[in-house]
Amino acid sequence: MSKKISIAIDAMGGDNSPDKTIEGIKIFINKNKSYNDFIFNIFGKEDVIKEKLKKKNIETSFINIINSNTVISDDETPLSAIKNSKNTSMWNCIQHQIDGKSDISLSAGNTGVLLVISRMILKMMSDVSKPALAGLWPNQNGMNVVLDLGANIECSDQNLVDFAELGSALFKSLFPNEKPKVSLLNIGSEEIKGTEILKVASKRLKELSGEDNFIYNGYIEGNNIMSGVSNVIITDGFTGNIALKTAEGTAKFITNNLKKSLTENLLSKISLIFSYFSLKKFKQKLDPRKYNGAIFLGLNGPVVKSHGGTDSIGFYHSIDLCYKIVKGQLMTQIKKNLQHSRSDKNSL
Amino acid sequence: MSKKISIAIDAMGGDNSPDKTIEGIKIFINKNKSYNDFIFNIFGKEDVIKEKLKKKNIETSFINIINSNTVISDDETPLSAIKNSKNTSMWNCIQHQIDGKSDISLSAGNTGVLLVISRMILKMMSDVSKPALAGLWPNQNGMNVVLDLGANIECSDQNLVDFAELGSALFKSLFPNEKPKVSLLNIGSEEIKGTEILKVASKRLKELSGEDNFIYNGYIEGNNIMSGVSNVIITDGFTGNIALKTAEGTAKFITNNLKKSLTENLLSKISLIFSYFSLKKFKQKLDPRKYNGAIFLGLNGPVVKSHGGTDSIGFYHSIDLCYKIVKGQLMTQIKKNLQHSRSDKNSL
Repeated sequence: MSKKISIAIDAMGGDNSPDKTIEGIKIFINKNKSYNDFIFNIFGKEDVIKEKLKKKNIETSFINIINSNTVISDDETPLSAIKNSKNTSMWNCIQHQIDGKSDISLSAGNTGVLLVISRMILKMMSDVSKPALAGLWPNQNGMNVVLDLGANIECSDQNLVDFAELGSALFKSLFPNEKPKVSLLNIGSEEIKGTEILKVASKRLKELSGEDNFIYNGYIEGNNIMSGVSNVIITDGFTGNIALKTAEGTAKFITNNLKKSLTENLLSKISLIFSYFSLKKFKQKLDPRKYNGAIFLGLNGPVVKSHGGTDSIGFYHSIDLCYKIVKGQLMTQIKKNLQHSRSDKNSL
Repeated sequence: MSKKISIAIDAMGGDNSPDKTIEGIKIFINKNKSYNDFIFNIFGKEDVIKEKLKKKNIETSFINIINSNTVISDDETPLSAIKNSKNTSMWNCIQHQIDGKSDISLSAGNTGVLLVISRMILKMMSDVSKPALAGLWPNQNGMNVVLDLGANIECSDQNLVDFAELGSALFKSLFPNEKPKVSLLNIGSEEIKGTEILKVASKRLKELSGEDNFIYNGYIEGNNIMSGVSNVIITDGFTGNIALKTAEGTAKFITNNLKKSLTENLLSKISLIFSYFSLKKFKQKLDPRKYNGAIFLGLNGPVVKSHGGTDSIGFYHSIDLCYKIVKGQLMTQIKKNLQHSRSDKNSL
């Protein structure tokens, strides 16, 4: 690709911004400047951003600042934001993208507002009726793509089938050397289990399963999400959100208890001297900042939402995610998948 | 209580039975014989059970064997079981209970069949339209009761309200010194979040909240299930099953990775010498056998399902659960709760 990957970044959204966003950009530039194949379009208060860039000694050749004086507050509801969000740093990101000047947008601001603005400006793809929020989730062999994580609390069987097409396209763009293996999240692996919607979606996914889009692996239960059997996990936004947050809560509960156990007495504290490097690696593997970034799928362009509370390292990972998504040609992969599914449907 | 707590046990259900069931009974008797306030009615092949009891040197004064020659297979579907289950060890347990000769039944056999048989023989309580499957789930301050874990994939707002009454009664019977604090599992804590069913149920629970049944704490998100803010978590069977299994899978993923990290090199192996006792305590706290046993609620009598794949220690914990449920007078607590809720409704 001779054209540079162009990423629109809302520098002002989330806690401690623009400090963390600018610091995240610095980390990315330092790691990837030798490739010289990317450009950041940064939206926010120009003078503040310029000052931070200078203070942090960041190479400005990778950066293009577009002044946006207003910022969307975290208290804004999606409804009030429609009136108040024009010309904010978030709005201007997405507008830049629809104008063809950026390939992808990234913000750590208000999720609901970002979803509404993205949908308003980028619009739904003509073949998809509902957008989904996809996320990364580690498994025993590597990484899962899981969707929907909360954009739609109720989904039809067609929505779930669409999510499978969108999610496997995302997987292919992120992990070009692996095959997407799709499963539907359910309360049992037998065919008779689950709701009617799941049964109809499962039947359709079985028909669509094939080498050129994805392999359908049938139902998966919650305890196997991280087993690595499948790597694209499909569910409605209610269930997906609860599964993701339950996993987060469980991980926190266990690591808190482990920490308590390993510091409870002198002997266990001595053990930490010997296990320091191993435990550090263990901690790094589970570091939620590595999986930071939810991807809005189904719009005429990709948008990534960084966790509002993450730090500069988490924000760096969401920039890296944007870079990989564009490099892996997500939109081309999605169109290919949807074409396959639609033409197959018409021929039935 | 002068009357002994009488527990009907299907000795034949689950893997490695009756070995593990008999061994579990032995552990319970050894720990509790000084109280002398319980009796086991054991159902299964009399000669086999007698031989095991003798071999394991178990005091038979606590035991009453009722011969049942047939056993329900794990492959039986609930439908075929209705025809084939009469006079099996599982059927005879529940029959014994409805005849007033046992206070509670326990089986590690086929879950679907146990649910169907229990419902057929014990019947639903007149005020409850759907039975629920409740389980124990550790939290930062102690223990949660969570329901429904999979008996009903779709639930009405009234079902969820019933589950709150049933679940908080179970909590009171198990932890008489603590107050039940109810929350509805949802994808956000704000009132506008979630489905219409959840919103209606939440409104009703707010009206019912009070010192004499339970305190309603509003919505809870997946990441707070284990935080200890609430201790009775209410959800439909689809979501509950997926949340529980996702937590199990996450715990397994983390502990597997921890094990790998702590044995990866000589230094980390040395650390294990110093952390041995602390890690052992940590492991014990998370041991799933301690939480073994799902409780069917809403029938005219309590039935406990032990995990089929558990061992004798897990089975012992499910016996202990039965003992505590009867001692805590679950059925009286349920009737009190339901009466409160129904009279309140009539007065509206």
